[in-house]
Amino acid sequence: MLALAGYPMGLQFRVLDPGVDPPAGEMAPAVTAQFDDLMALDAFMDGCDVVTFEFEQVPADSARHIARHVPVHPSPDILEVAQDRLAEKDLFASLDIPTARFARVDDHRMLTDAVATIGGPSILKTRGGGYDGKGQVRIATESDTVHAWEDLGAAPCILEEVVDFERELSIIAARTEGGDIAFYPPVENHHRDGLLRLSIAPAPDLTQDLVDQAEHHARAILERYDYQGILAIELFEKNGVLFGNEFAPRVHNSGHWTIEGAETSQFENHLRGVLGLPLGDPSARGYAAMVNLIGTLPDTTEVLAAGGHLHLYGKEPRPGRKLGHITVRADSAADLAVAIERISALIDQGRS
Amino acid sequence: MLALAGYPMGLQFRVLDPGVDPPAGEMAPAVTAQFDDLMALDAFMDGCDVVTFEFEQVPADSARHIARHVPVHPSPDILEVAQDRLAEKDLFASLDIPTARFARVDDHRMLTDAVATIGGPSILKTRGGGYDGKGQVRIATESDTVHAWEDLGAAPCILEEVVDFERELSIIAARTEGGDIAFYPPVENHHRDGLLRLSIAPAPDLTQDLVDQAEHHARAILERYDYQGILAIELFEKNGVLFGNEFAPRVHNSGHWTIEGAETSQFENHLRGVLGLPLGDPSARGYAAMVNLIGTLPDTTEVLAAGGHLHLYGKEPRPGRKLGHITVRADSAADLAVAIERISALIDQGRS
Repeated sequence: MLALAGYPMGLQFRVLDPGVDPPAGEMAPAVTAQFDDLMALDAFMDGCDVVTFEFEQVPADSARHIARHVPVHPSPDILEVAQDRLAEKDLFASLDIPTARFARVDDHRMLTDAVATIGGPSILKTRGGGYDGKGQVRIATESDTVHAWEDLGAAPCILEEVVDFERELSIIAARTEGGDIAFYPPVENHHRDGLLRLSIAPAPDLTQDLVDQAEHHARAILERYDYQGILAIELFEKNGVLFGNEFAPRVHNSGHWTIEGAETSQFENHLRGVLGLPLGDPSARGYAAMVNLIGTLPDTTEVLAAGGHLHLYGKEPRPGRKLGHITVRADSAADLAVAIERISALIDQGRS
Repeated sequence: MLALAGYPMGLQFRVLDPGVDPPAGEMAPAVTAQFDDLMALDAFMDGCDVVTFEFEQVPADSARHIARHVPVHPSPDILEVAQDRLAEKDLFASLDIPTARFARVDDHRMLTDAVATIGGPSILKTRGGGYDGKGQVRIATESDTVHAWEDLGAAPCILEEVVDFERELSIIAARTEGGDIAFYPPVENHHRDGLLRLSIAPAPDLTQDLVDQAEHHARAILERYDYQGILAIELFEKNGVLFGNEFAPRVHNSGHWTIEGAETSQFENHLRGVLGLPLGDPSARGYAAMVNLIGTLPDTTEVLAAGGHLHLYGKEPRPGRKLGHITVRADSAADLAVAIERISALIDQGRS
């Protein structure tokens, strides 16, 4: 999706992916190599003006290796923070972004202490490697701790308080060289089985105060890291307050609606930011929703007949795998709700 | 632009172009071959589900050769009509689409007869090969005829009455298998030196009657040829009547605004039509204009800072060559006029 957004601006692309036949290889030259293969990285970066990533588990040291020769945006430093749930929460705290209570857990003793301090239900998460709901165990009572600690492989962890949040929002923001920032309207996200299923843009019932909080949080991170490109922050809402859950220093699934739903897509603005070009207008055009296609694919003809904008990623179907998404757009929130219903019905059909 | 529109729908592309390093070769495998190299066509079509064209001078016989093995849309028959100005005008006439008066000219005698019949200023055009204002000579008096006939190489020609039209409009329409048709709103086109410079979408001061005429004309051609894909018709307006000037059986420069300005782009609807998939909503989203980049390129940073959506075609700059276009979008006609001014100023700057 980055390459598709960049070709019209005259950009050329080269892709590095450890997997054979990567989806982006359809539309740009692809190098197959492990992310820590430094010789492959050297060959890959040769002739590039800038390097970016759209996958958060690229080793920060590999990004640093490249950054010694070619600019890498967003910076390897923020990439490294995003790979460590504890560093992420510490960053939120240092920027006055509210979070659920959390504690560092390096061993079983620190876990029992943390459970006692935080009290009530909590969730133990590995600091690294987790995504889409993986690497997490819920802890209701102190007796759960041994089990939980072993389930996660006795790895460095973070214990987080479980708060009864009302909903999840996210904000996508772009920053370019010189400091200009563009904020997309916050969206409302719905998950199932740890996977994002639906984003509604803009989020229903947004108040100016919620927008201000979300933009404040995004701006704080962007400015701290002299950021270039797209940043996404997942936020939880409770009693009118937005809590930082996690952030992603990359284009984000909850921003895919911007291809049709915003004046400039997150993909184009990521490229503009990374290249130091002026950002495009992030305003929403009407009402949009993004429905993920997970595990199985619906019938193309039915999706198009129902007014969906189809985006397939060229991946082999596999349970739990994000294979694509559908965007619907409408001129009113009521029409959007009808369109979401129509598309969701097709997807549930495909899955049964 | 077709490939960029098709990848999200899961399509794969292969391009045939007689030129080395074709622009589309950046993003799809390209075969370099002449259009009449039948062995190359055989290799090219092998494994294709459908073949289409975005260049009108592909020999109709080459398209027919392919069509014996793989569906070709639009059909080679309509392609052949589009390559012959006389056949084109005859088609308009047979479908009750008004045209300026015209006459077939095969030799100098037929030319002098035609000039006498049509009277007043007229224009002699070669029947084949002309585009962007080439292959045309204006005739004011009978004494111009010898000169004109020789200037055009004594080739088969058509003489057309010069009518003092008020403006040029065009309509883009898509048709898919089964007969569904989608009409984009007619746009107003402005030329200079025979080249399209600016399209305004929707055309200002459209009446329902003008829209009805444009849609009638498009529908007549689409249905006559059991058409699949995008058709463009250039129309001249005079005293509330739309005259057919020429048509193009392909995506058209005056429809490039649809990428940002319509719910579904002409490129996506061409692919849907060609593949027999349901068409997408052709409605305009607000007001849009497309400004062509001809001969030289403006500064990318300035274009983006001015709110332009930049589309570069990856071609070497050369006088008179279409190198790309810029689309601007606005929520009112007044805002659009301001945006056109701003972008036009940048382009004139680049040209001086």
